[in-house]
Amino acid sequence: MKHLFMGCVAVCLMAMVSCTKEKEIVSSVPAHIEDGMIVLDTPEREPGQESALGMTCAPLDTVHVAFVGIGGRGYWAVDRYTNIEGVKIVALCDAKQERVDLTNKMLTDKGWPAADEYVGDEAYKELCQREDVDLVYIATDWLDHTNIAVCAMENGHHAAIEVPSAMTIDECWRLVNASEKSRCHCTILENCCYDFFEMSTLNMAQQGLFGEVYHVEGAYIHYLAEDWSYSEPWRLDYNIANRGDNYPTHGLGPICQVLNIHRGDKMDYLVAMDTPSYNGLKVAKELRDTTVCADGDHTISLIQTAKRKVIEVQHNVYAPRPYSRMHQLTGTDGFANKYPIEQLTVKSMNGHDELAAGVKDSLLQAYRPEFVKDIEAKAREVGGHGGMDFLMDYRLVYCLRNGLPLDEDVYDCAEWSSVQELSRISLENGSMPVKVPDFTRGDWDKIDGFHYAMK
Amino acid sequence: MKHLFMGCVAVCLMAMVSCTKEKEIVSSVPAHIEDGMIVLDTPEREPGQESALGMTCAPLDTVHVAFVGIGGRGYWAVDRYTNIEGVKIVALCDAKQERVDLTNKMLTDKGWPAADEYVGDEAYKELCQREDVDLVYIATDWLDHTNIAVCAMENGHHAAIEVPSAMTIDECWRLVNASEKSRCHCTILENCCYDFFEMSTLNMAQQGLFGEVYHVEGAYIHYLAEDWSYSEPWRLDYNIANRGDNYPTHGLGPICQVLNIHRGDKMDYLVAMDTPSYNGLKVAKELRDTTVCADGDHTISLIQTAKRKVIEVQHNVYAPRPYSRMHQLTGTDGFANKYPIEQLTVKSMNGHDELAAGVKDSLLQAYRPEFVKDIEAKAREVGGHGGMDFLMDYRLVYCLRNGLPLDEDVYDCAEWSSVQELSRISLENGSMPVKVPDFTRGDWDKIDGFHYAMK
Repeated sequence: MKHLFMGCVAVCLMAMVSCTKEKEIVSSVPAHIEDGMIVLDTPEREPGQESALGMTCAPLDTVHVAFVGIGGRGYWAVDRYTNIEGVKIVALCDAKQERVDLTNKMLTDKGWPAADEYVGDEAYKELCQREDVDLVYIATDWLDHTNIAVCAMENGHHAAIEVPSAMTIDECWRLVNASEKSRCHCTILENCCYDFFEMSTLNMAQQGLFGEVYHVEGAYIHYLAEDWSYSEPWRLDYNIANRGDNYPTHGLGPICQVLNIHRGDKMDYLVAMDTPSYNGLKVAKELRDTTVCADGDHTISLIQTAKRKVIEVQHNVYAPRPYSRMHQLTGTDGFANKYPIEQLTVKSMNGHDELAAGVKDSLLQAYRPEFVKDIEAKAREVGGHGGMDFLMDYRLVYCLRNGLPLDEDVYDCAEWSSVQELSRISLENGSMPVKVPDFTRGDWDKIDGFHYAMK
Repeated sequence: MKHLFMGCVAVCLMAMVSCTKEKEIVSSVPAHIEDGMIVLDTPEREPGQESALGMTCAPLDTVHVAFVGIGGRGYWAVDRYTNIEGVKIVALCDAKQERVDLTNKMLTDKGWPAADEYVGDEAYKELCQREDVDLVYIATDWLDHTNIAVCAMENGHHAAIEVPSAMTIDECWRLVNASEKSRCHCTILENCCYDFFEMSTLNMAQQGLFGEVYHVEGAYIHYLAEDWSYSEPWRLDYNIANRGDNYPTHGLGPICQVLNIHRGDKMDYLVAMDTPSYNGLKVAKELRDTTVCADGDHTISLIQTAKRKVIEVQHNVYAPRPYSRMHQLTGTDGFANKYPIEQLTVKSMNGHDELAAGVKDSLLQAYRPEFVKDIEAKAREVGGHGGMDFLMDYRLVYCLRNGLPLDEDVYDCAEWSSVQELSRISLENGSMPVKVPDFTRGDWDKIDGFHYAMK
């Protein structure tokens, strides 16, 4: 017995010495470490709850829209919607009366009937009780996005959410679960997927002009220095309080479509790295009188997919640099790059041609998706970042009216938004890899590639 | 006793269950995992061995050069050296007689005396026995770089090594130790540090035009498709056999100079991610009839420094994409980018100006380092990648003749080359972070910034 005891003590000591210290991981859902990777728990579906992949809903002759959050972004969304057929704007909701007033004046000036008014932080709950709402269009501050969307879906309305649609992994799951349970659509209003270069190169990638695309880069490099002081305060507050890539979707959305994320491939794991906060801290001190800014000036995330392709996404809203979403696609037979200059390389009879500007433009024009050709002139006229905002809204209304699957589904919502918290977790743990949850819970390769549903 | 035993067993079981599985790390020096990071052993200095940081050697009226490896690269190095004052070319060494013949013919055609000849794989050993050699200039296949350099230094000669200078962490330490023990210089022939945009922006960064530079990107994106079949076979062989960023120094060197690596900051840890091998595998099948290519088509490494700045370096020699070394500097007050187009943003009285082409060129011209102004015309005429090769050789000879510290020292050799194995280790361990060895063994912040030594 004594020998066994001594042996036991020895084994104990050896085992403890070889253990890595258990890290304390701060995350919105339970997490643990497996083989040097941080893994977040995946919640089980409730009995009867089914996937919303490829989900369609009853067609709508008219889409009755309620806008919640009509500040700088929402106001122009209402404006764009007055240009879309088959739309009725039934309600406007904002924390501030003056925003509702301003927007209703815009409607009536255009000859539209005034919409019903809901004013106050919680007024969206009353709005969601209405039975005559098909779509709740959410452009509030970020922290309210998920709550309002879930409320909308639980009350039988589709939800369209500005970006980022969810701020934590827990919120991502709340959106997914609400959509799956309610059988209501939940879409992310990622306008950059509808910009012209992005749509043409997506089409070109699908037609094989770049061969197998295996490396994609996106970014949100946007010097917001001037903006902090006049825009709504919550954006700066969020960046001051939160480390990580806090705004990944503009760069990430279009490149995820190219790689058919949850349509043949999926994001497997992520590592992130950031710099200290320099200009961010400077702004935080000047405008908020605080001594800490959590968001590093520059944040980079690398994501490996199940097919071992690589996604890179960068974030920097503090550096005086030219605007860039990068949008770079590298394939076995070609290449596309959007910022700082548009570049296209494609295979040709003598090898590979880096296309001169005129040829490049012609090719991009030729590869505009079909639906764009019909609506391009109107899109550029109505605008919103050159037209992409209108195209995004146009497609959403089109799909809802025709009972089609949406271009940007709830799994896109979750995946593109999840990079926020996933990057933060990696950063707080010395750039340790973090497993990306499979929000489809096993169905990531059931759909064969991305496409725009048409009637 | 029985209770103690049962308690022990229970503790044992708990301890083992909470252990992460010990990974088996393949590395050229012993490695272990600490807190989720892979750490490589740092060898101790031998008694009496001292740092070579800032080392100077006796001035030389004439630099007697022996060239080892006079293939495609070495031949043109000899050619450039015939244009530098204070140089005597005493020996040529190659595995092949015809390379020696060709090079000696070039010398004699130029009116230079023929150099002594050394032919064969091991002939460098005999060459290194000579007492009349000051500098051994090494441009052989990669796998011989370190052996030849160590042999040179052990025999009292300075060593200049083509890139990458060392292929493993072990080789990095061998170079460092050899230089520290022999008190001979060991330099990396990283020509890209002498390209005009790189030198001007380094100078601008040092003068504060970009504020605090905190994020830098380098790359080696070079479609080598045509080259594989006519160049020396060892380059393709190496890529087929080795995973990781196999050629990091062209993109990494210039940006490390900007961040004052081992001159105030140091590389702390690295994470890497790669894609599968697509075109690499295709080439391997076609030209080597093999079914595996270890090097992924695209490899990305992220490196955090001690000051928490971020270095990114990419590698892709397989994709039909425009050539790029990236060379991007992001600072609190400005920005520089070289590929695909030169961009400069600097602070001005009304904020920050993205400079128009003419202004950009003027600024770059104005910030040429002093030594360049005197020699620029000759550099562009003698050439070698537009002049940077000549400037690199010119500076080396200048510093040796004047008994000055070299621009690129043995720690640069080691640091820039180390990314090869460090990236491979991270890749083979699911992108786990890998500690970058401190090749200065504690002196990384003793020199106050990079500068070109002048007499």
